[in-house]
Amino acid sequence: MVVLGIDPGYAIVGYGLVEFKNQKLTPLQYGAIRTAADQPISARLNEIYNDMTHLLDAFQPDCVAMERLYFNTNEKTAINVSQARGVLLLACEQAGKQVFEYTPLQVKMSVVGYGRAEKRQVMELTQRILGLKEIPKPDDAADALAIAVCHAHSAHSQYAR
Amino acid sequence: MVVLGIDPGYAIVGYGLVEFKNQKLTPLQYGAIRTAADQPISARLNEIYNDMTHLLDAFQPDCVAMERLYFNTNEKTAINVSQARGVLLLACEQAGKQVFEYTPLQVKMSVVGYGRAEKRQVMELTQRILGLKEIPKPDDAADALAIAVCHAHSAHSQYAR
Repeated sequence: MVVLGIDPGYAIVGYGLVEFKNQKLTPLQYGAIRTAADQPISARLNEIYNDMTHLLDAFQPDCVAMERLYFNTNEKTAINVSQARGVLLLACEQAGKQVFEYTPLQVKMSVVGYGRAEKRQVMELTQRILGLKEIPKPDDAADALAIAVCHAHSAHSQYAR
Repeated sequence: MVVLGIDPGYAIVGYGLVEFKNQKLTPLQYGAIRTAADQPISARLNEIYNDMTHLLDAFQPDCVAMERLYFNTNEKTAINVSQARGVLLLACEQAGKQVFEYTPLQVKMSVVGYGRAEKRQVMELTQRILGLKEIPKPDDAADALAIAVCHAHSAHSQYAR
């Protein structure tokens, strides 16, 4: 089973493709979609949608795990991240991929085993779990891999079976 | 010049098509896109995107006027409305339509001339300005027409020229 983890955003969308097989997690691909700040938001949303549609087509994951939003930032950022999340969900729906959603707390609990874990700890544990030589860059890609790992550990995943 | 006003939402998206010609505003079409509450949000976003894409193709407006969000509701609603707004902006971008955004305050000021106007007053004035026999239903369609009128009154519009 191959899951695509997505860390939603409008300036940068992290993604990480992880395979769960024989009780083992293997990172296949990771990276980020970036959009230029000097473009109008509609154009940035279009770029995110097009790039995600291409990634889904290229990777053919079995499902998607996406971070659920919470409002810890300012209003404008929250609206723009939600708008980006809307076009990411649309791309997944159109590709026929089921999306599983996890809160940042669920990701921390799943990866580190501790809900108040620091961002850095989540990245280090993700690196260790996936057997990577270093912490993936950018941070958004590392976050996306952590979300994929969270899904692997969850009851929805076939990994545990 | 024909403008499509959009009142974004995820359960219901209001739209109103208004023509500005010879210093006159004429309502051409109005209505609403509705999505079923028992569907997952991804499916609802897909429906909104498809329906808006079809409306843009059928109506061929010169531009779009959309309400800018502000967070007066609960967090979950705000996220879902923003996600819906994301796919609406995407549909407009893909149709090559420029989107002008107005806050609820701007709409009230423009239609009623008073920023603290009640929702009902905005609807009544919109009805009068557009020469409609009654207040359009649902409310979301009336709101969408008000946003289109707001754009007609704005400096961006060719109506004033």
